[in-house]
Amino acid sequence: MVFDVFNPACPSRQAFDQIFSRWGILTLSRLSTEPIRFGTLRRSVGGISERMLSQTLKVLEEEGLVRRQEWDEKPPRVEYSLTDAGQRISASLAVVIDQLYGELARRRV
Amino acid sequence: MVFDVFNPACPSRQAFDQIFSRWGILTLSRLSTEPIRFGTLRRSVGGISERMLSQTLKVLEEEGLVRRQEWDEKPPRVEYSLTDAGQRISASLAVVIDQLYGELARRRV
Repeated sequence: MVFDVFNPACPSRQAFDQIFSRWGILTLSRLSTEPIRFGTLRRSVGGISERMLSQTLKVLEEEGLVRRQEWDEKPPRVEYSLTDAGQRISASLAVVIDQLYGELARRRV
Repeated sequence: MVFDVFNPACPSRQAFDQIFSRWGILTLSRLSTEPIRFGTLRRSVGGISERMLSQTLKVLEEEGLVRRQEWDEKPPRVEYSLTDAGQRISASLAVVIDQLYGELARRRV
């Protein structure tokens, strides 16, 4: 099968629409370094609401990019991390964000 | 200056929010190959409305990623293309989209 993200009927476009919201990109990028608890994640993706982060994580989990792990502690500890697929997507998003930084730095020269 | 896209007060985040909408990414990607007229662009970014494409192009032009060129013909011909900065961002987005295709192909195995 040849994927075509410009075609709304292509599964790649459906995955694209799910994953590549602004919050999806930021959340994937933020998770690239280590497993993070919900509250920490929310504070570190500046501007995201609790509801939006829950939704975003749910979608990324369904798409197989994020793993939710619950630790049997009191109080229970829930951590989010990237799957291998999530790591790969996140790595290429890091390049895009670096690119953006580069463009902005260039603009300021 | 150190940019931080996770900080809503950082100029990089403001540029990010402008550029990396789903339609922004698709429009930048579609423009990577050649200058395109509005109508052609609209048909090739499946699902985008005229209004949404106008808005997206305006933002990308303001961000210095897209160039609008009007040719003095009858009827007037208007073409959109990427600036150098747009080409660079678009190239790194192409990697992300290829990555997505790769993940979907892997999932189907």
